[in-house]
Amino acid sequence: MYEVYVAARFEAAHRLTGDFGSAARMHGHTYGLEVILRGQSLKDDGTLFDIGELKDAVDGLAASLHYRDLDEVPGLAEINTTAENVASFCWERLAPRLRDRGLGSLTVRIWENPQVYAAREDALD
Amino acid sequence: MYEVYVAARFEAAHRLTGDFGSAARMHGHTYGLEVILRGQSLKDDGTLFDIGELKDAVDGLAASLHYRDLDEVPGLAEINTTAENVASFCWERLAPRLRDRGLGSLTVRIWENPQVYAAREDALD
Amino acid sequence: MYEVYVAARFEAAHRLTGDFGSAARMHGHTYGLEVILRGQSLKDDGTLFDIGELKDAVDGLAASLHYRDLDEVPGLAEINTTAENVASFCWERLAPRLRDRGLGSLTVRIWENPQVYAAREDALD
Repeated sequence: MYEVYVAARFEAAHRLTGDFGSAARMHGHTYGLEVILRGQSLKDDGTLFDIGELKDAVDGLAASLHYRDLDEVPGLAEINTTAENVASFCWERLAPRLRDRGLGSLTVRIWENPQVYAAREDALD
Repeated sequence: MYEVYVAARFEAAHRLTGDFGSAARMHGHTYGLEVILRGQSLKDDGTLFDIGELKDAVDGLAASLHYRDLDEVPGLAEINTTAENVASFCWERLAPRLRDRGLGSLTVRIWENPQVYAAREDALD
Repeated sequence: MYEVYVAARFEAAHRLTGDFGSAARMHGHTYGLEVILRGQSLKDDGTLFDIGELKDAVDGLAASLHYRDLDEVPGLAEINTTAENVASFCWERLAPRLRDRGLGSLTVRIWENPQVYAAREDALD
């Protein structure tokens, strides 16, 4: 089994709704966005997936969230912007262009800081 | 599948018993403690598990090992304080409060330094 | 399930063959080499596998690639030196000495820089 991984960052504000203590106050993070693709075999050119193409997709997604209030982003404004939900949001944004490309699964990790992340991993088919 | 991750650190001394060369001498590490919870679905508040609660548990465990000789800690004093056994010790300390909470598995990684870790991963049920 | 992990680095040149934009030009990376062994149970001495022995093997492999043009290394000269292929090359170099040692799987990650890696994971049996 092979993996390729690409990382990006974005700086964004958010606040949680519910019993989350200080996280219910407006605050922000330098978010880390990590994306992993998995598949069983390499193509003839020795790649699982063109890392340059993946990097462009991940950088574009990060740019779309950079210097934003996540609670105002369509798709996140309706839900609690926990790291889990932000990871799931990013998963859904990336998955469509990755289907039917011979890949097995996609993982998206959202780091709120170097000590905390949440991730979503699911099959791409 | 979702994950949440929390990291902490502690500084401790230890020595290995057996044919481990210089690791059989009393020495120490700035240990890294990484904890990952996995589960299939999020709760209504958008969390797999409250990261704040997990962080409190992990920080408390790290504090209990900080500035200790691991070979004198009950539960470790009886066994070889390899990174694998320290990871397993931490796994057993954390697991009881995490059972019956809708989680699938728990991973604990113990870093002896930025180039070496050992981990234990097992189902929580 | 247990894991042990060791990391090393090497500095090497390479170029890709094919439609890879600037990566088709001769360039280089400070490569990160990460190796993970997995198995179901620990030995009586509290180890899955002697990390010192694993470190020696990984450091030796890294040294054999340090300050080299990967496209001239036997086993890589015949193929495209994508991160996936370099990971697979390293996997094949490490696996023989790790078989029949009670291990389940071996993962090798090759980082081209802190934002990009490719990995191969396969069973050791």
